[in-house]
Amino acid sequence: METVTVELGERSYPIMIGAGILDQLGAQLAAHVSARRAAVITNPVVGKLYARGVLDSLSAAGFQTVTVEIPDGEEHKNLAWLTFIYDRLVGAQMDRGCPVIALGGGVVGDLAGFAAATFLRGVPFVQVPTTLLAHVDSSVGGKTGINHPAGKNLIGAFYQPRLVLIDVDTLKTLPRRELVAGLVEVIKYGAILDAELFALVERDLDRILSCDATLLQHVVQRCCALKAMVVQRDERESDFRSILNFGHTVGHAVESLTEYKRYLHGEAVAIGMAFAARLSHARGYCKRETVQQIVQLLKRIGLPANVPPELIGPQLALTIGSDKKMAGGKVKFVCIEDLGRTRFESVGSEEIAELAARWMAAGI
Amino acid sequence: METVTVELGERSYPIMIGAGILDQLGAQLAAHVSARRAAVITNPVVGKLYARGVLDSLSAAGFQTVTVEIPDGEEHKNLAWLTFIYDRLVGAQMDRGCPVIALGGGVVGDLAGFAAATFLRGVPFVQVPTTLLAHVDSSVGGKTGINHPAGKNLIGAFYQPRLVLIDVDTLKTLPRRELVAGLVEVIKYGAILDAELFALVERDLDRILSCDATLLQHVVQRCCALKAMVVQRDERESDFRSILNFGHTVGHAVESLTEYKRYLHGEAVAIGMAFAARLSHARGYCKRETVQQIVQLLKRIGLPANVPPELIGPQLALTIGSDKKMAGGKVKFVCIEDLGRTRFESVGSEEIAELAARWMAAGI
Repeated sequence: METVTVELGERSYPIMIGAGILDQLGAQLAAHVSARRAAVITNPVVGKLYARGVLDSLSAAGFQTVTVEIPDGEEHKNLAWLTFIYDRLVGAQMDRGCPVIALGGGVVGDLAGFAAATFLRGVPFVQVPTTLLAHVDSSVGGKTGINHPAGKNLIGAFYQPRLVLIDVDTLKTLPRRELVAGLVEVIKYGAILDAELFALVERDLDRILSCDATLLQHVVQRCCALKAMVVQRDERESDFRSILNFGHTVGHAVESLTEYKRYLHGEAVAIGMAFAARLSHARGYCKRETVQQIVQLLKRIGLPANVPPELIGPQLALTIGSDKKMAGGKVKFVCIEDLGRTRFESVGSEEIAELAARWMAAGI
Repeated sequence: METVTVELGERSYPIMIGAGILDQLGAQLAAHVSARRAAVITNPVVGKLYARGVLDSLSAAGFQTVTVEIPDGEEHKNLAWLTFIYDRLVGAQMDRGCPVIALGGGVVGDLAGFAAATFLRGVPFVQVPTTLLAHVDSSVGGKTGINHPAGKNLIGAFYQPRLVLIDVDTLKTLPRRELVAGLVEVIKYGAILDAELFALVERDLDRILSCDATLLQHVVQRCCALKAMVVQRDERESDFRSILNFGHTVGHAVESLTEYKRYLHGEAVAIGMAFAARLSHARGYCKRETVQQIVQLLKRIGLPANVPPELIGPQLALTIGSDKKMAGGKVKFVCIEDLGRTRFESVGSEEIAELAARWMAAGI
């Protein structure tokens, strides 16, 4: 087991990463909180696979537990299911010291995290992520939230967990499509912050996709260390943390225009990263080879690397223009200079839509 | 105008206190945020009196505004009205830099503050309180939240405002019953932290109740300085901040048992303070004279100082036992040693109910 510490003063916390460590949750949690009651939030798919082991581990460490099941899927990350969780926490008479544990992917983590952030003005929160996307991204850094009919994550809080426990063995039961989508965020860390990590994914792609535990543990640990570094420098995304939005401006627009149904988040971000790399080259910030390296790696994994033609048009500019990160009609766009090196540039939503149309016409 | 600064590192903020300063809101806000759009959350009663002046001041400083009206009353501090606010903020395309301004009493402040804490994971929040209770207590310190059918403020967040602007002239339109109820919290600050403030209220009670602006400004400034000191020492109520719960254990139970209909918060806290003083004397922590001073001051203002007989019984212990501040069957009870001096003691809910019954039987 390896540990990455997110250093945030009194809100610091460890990320424990290993293979087959799910049964250590109870003992680890007992060392981090004094209460001996806990709520486990999960979904039926993950719950069926892992709830028994987690509950046994908690019970062995002296915890009484209540389990709250949320249906699987992004469409349930809403106020109605948040209210359902509040009601269950009230019903179980959880007090301020009782931890809320998220067992699942990003949806469970975001929803449970926001419930933990706001129940009794904040109770201890523990992340036990079970998808690659959650391992390397959503379980670390404290972003929690729910969707509003008008947009994703419009309601939420920055709320750091007390403990993150990542068992890479849970990836063995993850559908390949989700594993691949999660890998996009790994490639993103490589592209923006760590050329070595990028090269490792290029070289060891097959071993990663076959869930080699040692390699996965190393990759996840590296990503968590990078994310910890970013979050330590800028917890509330006032500045530097925006670097993690590489590929996300166009990615979010693609997700939104396809109503979150056609693409997994990572797949849309793959499209966005390829776009961001091309824009960086078009503006003269990076070499053509850098674009090619990124696009080729994405394509090797079977990921999309172009904005679908039917989404290109005025609606694309409008959708980007309504992004919650917009300011003064421009978005702070993450450009790439070289693998592992980025720069922020102010880019208008119209310009993005025009470039997409031009590249489509040119068959790029 | 006087300023009290709440020193919380990067979350520090000024509390500006004066008479007739409402029209300075726009200029002050412009110095604290860069956005030039703002949402004003108020209720019809306060809105009718003060919204025009506030909106004019904001407009003169270059702000575009959207006004959101919430019905008056604690029963509207709930998820439904929170959702209403979110919808209006989304509809007005407020971005992360746009402040949410609470213009009103505690209900408006708690609800607007929680909306500000959670919309887009946190937007700037400004308090413009218009009741004495909000001037001296709820607008300072960052507690925000809404009620759950199972209890008050069960859902919320610690979220500090960017600016608090207190115009004591707004108290001139406050119903006397609310002014008196707010004065209970002033007396509380005196009792637990500041014997001089307690003596000032005893001496200048009539001038306070006739809304002498100079005196009110001094009293509010003193209370805000005391609250700032407490919050600076323990922002998230892990320890010392609980001192502000003096009178609140029994006060909350009385409010709950009468379904928040019979007593204003301050009136219930008056009952709770008298009880806490008596308990302190019964345990030998303070002199009989201290109890008498507190009870007599409360009675002079026409406030209740006894738990109503019909509430005394097993239900009282059960209600106290379900308090969100309970731990291990005991509550951390704030006892008084002398005016301005307190101590924490662990007290069981059964013991509280028994004492209430004994004093009722003895006619105390």
